[in-house]
This record gives sequence, structure tokens and C-alpha cells, in this order.
Amino acid sequence: MNQELIRPILTVDIVVLTLHEQRVHVVVQKRDKPPHAGHFALIGGYVRPEEDVSTAAAAARVLRDKAGLTARLLEQLMTFSGTERDPRGWSASVAYYGLLPYQDVAQQVRRNLKMLPLDRATGLPFDHDTIVSKALERCRRRAAYSSLPAFLLPIAFTQSALRHAYEAVLGRALNDSAFRRKIDELRVIEPLAGNVSKATARPAQLYRLGRGHIVEFDRTV
Amino acid sequence: MNQELIRPILTVDIVVLTLHEQRVHVVVQKRDKPPHAGHFALIGGYVRPEEDVSTAAAAARVLRDKAGLTARLLEQLMTFSGTERDPRGWSASVAYYGLLPYQDVAQQVRRNLKMLPLDRATGLPFDHDTIVSKALERCRRRAAYSSLPAFLLPIAFTQSALRHAYEAVLGRALNDSAFRRKIDELRVIEPLAGNVSKATARPAQLYRLGRGHIVEFDRTV
Repeated sequence: MNQELIRPILTVDIVVLTLHEQRVHVVVQKRDKPPHAGHFALIGGYVRPEEDVSTAAAAARVLRDKAGLTARLLEQLMTFSGTERDPRGWSASVAYYGLLPYQDVAQQVRRNLKMLPLDRATGLPFDHDTIVSKALERCRRRAAYSSLPAFLLPIAFTQSALRHAYEAVLGRALNDSAFRRKIDELRVIEPLAGNVSKATARPAQLYRLGRGHIVEFDRTV
Repeated sequence: MNQELIRPILTVDIVVLTLHEQRVHVVVQKRDKPPHAGHFALIGGYVRPEEDVSTAAAAARVLRDKAGLTARLLEQLMTFSGTERDPRGWSASVAYYGLLPYQDVAQQVRRNLKMLPLDRATGLPFDHDTIVSKALERCRRRAAYSSLPAFLLPIAFTQSALRHAYEAVLGRALNDSAFRRKIDELRVIEPLAGNVSKATARPAQLYRLGRGHIVEFDRTV
């Protein structure tokens, strides 16, 4: 029973993704303690068994307490582990990806938070580059078959904004009329009666997700 | 820094899947210690930071040392955690799924190992029912777009055996000629020159996976 006493470090790291100027950005935070103090890294922290009912709860708490953020969608990615990833010793980090609208991040005036466009989200400490790249791979794959990109938008959005969110995550342009037809057939969004966006020259109908949670499709968008 | 000292239990659990009489089976092991001593459960154990370079290494070690098995494909599923899942206290278990041919399991004469067909793989201790169900969901989804089912077969197999493996994982019948055409186009298998199976009335050509690792397709089988 000896090995029960040697318990590794258990942490959570969250790849916070948002959409700004039609590009996916990763939200990173300046570390205030060693290792890598002063460097920007993924938002993360220790799992606290005495207060977190699960690692998912730990991820939500760390996001809230350290960055003042609440993800609209928070899902487990995978666990990264070993001796090499953290100079403090053998550690396992359960990684999550969290999606939220730009407005939610912009409201946070904490100076230790920063948004990096994907092509500049490299050179992060620990194995965070690998975690970011795995999160993007997962999000891209899920985006083709689910309502995932909608969680990068505010509650109310136009169909164009939704298409732009899909395009940003998928990394390719979509035909507008084909996209509208598919989204309509898949019935994931519903019009917000009487609500139009005044952000564009011509008023555009506003929509919201018909269900609160992520919906999987049986075919690609 | 106080919370660094309170470290939860970290374990691995492996959903070992094999193919027997054209049905997917889960390999379970009788527990020799409490909790749940004498009950069959997923093969699992503690992560040992002093000898395991990662949780993946821990899963391979546990599988080898406790059950004498080596999976042909061993992949991370996700991490299950919390206060409720193990009476010993707050725990996190990094779950893996492992695929291997029936012959490898059949060779293991350990009396504490048992193969359960999927419909009888319920009522397992801890949250193992949930872990099994998530593993099957993941394998089914991956099977449609990858060479995953081939890892349930021996190194050399006929095209019919490969189709049966896909059918068993996907849970639906496939058209034989359409399947052969797709498998041929996707170039995942290669004929073993001069090798034929004598298991059937008419000798059938034997094949092997062209690459050792799992291959993802860009369209469904």
C-alpha cells in the first residue's frame, strides 16, 4: 500500500478561446509565482479536493477566481502528465477548453490577462503549446459536427456572425446560402422575435441557440 | 501553498476491448482487495510517479503487471474525478481504452480475468459503467473515420474479418463490396504476399495494416 502515499501533483489548465476581429484568440495570464513567473501561460491551478467536487468544478473555479471569467462552454480535453512538464515534479494536468464571447473577456480589465491570436500563441511555458494545439484540433473537429462555434458568440447573434464563427474555427470560408440552409435544417438556432441587430447597415434578424447545451449533428456543417 | 500538500488519489483504469464470436467484449478482473473485493471491475491501479513516465505508461504497466496483457492500441479516453466515485476519498482516474485480439486474452489463463459481452458489461463497481459506456461511444465514433477496429484483430487478417470487426464496433451491417472498395481506396491495409487463410472453405488472402499506428480517414467507412 506504499504507493498510495506518493501522490502526484494534480492541476487543471484551461485553453480559453474567444473570437476577436473574426479570428480565434487564446486568453493567457501572466504568472505571478515561479516557475515561469512573469511569463504568460494558460490559466490554471491546483485541484483542491476539499472544495472541488470534480476536476470540471476545479476548472470553473480557477477560471472564475483567477481571471473573473465564466466559460459559456467548458469541456474536458485530455490529461497531460509526467516528470518533464513541470519543474516542481511529476504532475498531471487535466486540460479543458472554454469558449466565451469577446465581450466577456474585454470586460475584464485585469492587466495580467492577454488575448493572443492563434498564430502568436506559441512559446508558452510548460507543455502549454501542446495543450493549445490539441485543443484547437479538437475544437476544429467538433465544429464541423456540432454547434460548438456558437459558444464564441454573445447570447443573441446574426446568421452572418454565426457563419464567421464557424469559418474562424474551421479555418476555411463557407458558402453563405448553403450555410444558412444547413443551419436551418439542423434546427439549432431560433429567431429572437422582434429583435434585430443595428450593427449593420441593413437591420439583421437576431437568433439564439435553441438549446442551452452543445448539440452534435449527424452530418457536417 | 497549503493546497499543494493535499493531493488527491490518481489512478488509471483501462477499458480492454476485444472481439469474440463477432461481438465486442470488455475484459474485467476480479478485485483482490477492498473496496469491492471479489467483484469484477475494469483493470486499473495507482499511478506511480517513481516508475511511470506518464499516465499512458502507467496504463501499459498496470495492464501488463496485473493482467499480462499488451494492448495493440492504447489511447486516452478522459479523466473521471470527484468524491463520490471511490470510497477511499477524492480521486481522479485517467481512463484509457485498449484494443487487442481475442487470442491475446485467451492465452491468459488467469482465473481472475473474464470477458463480458457489451450487453452484460453493467453493474460494475465505482463509476466503471460510465467509463465503459464513454469508451464505447468514443470507439464507435472513431471507428467510422479510422482504422481503429483493425486493432481488435491479429496482425494478419482477411477482408471479411476486417468487415466483421467494423460491424461489431459500429453496431450495424456493412455492404461487403462497398466496404472492400472503400478500404482499398483508403489504402490502410496491404496484402501479405503469398499468405492465405485456411480458416474458410475457400482460401482467402491475408492482409495487414499498412502502417503500425491508427490512421484517421477524411470520410466515413
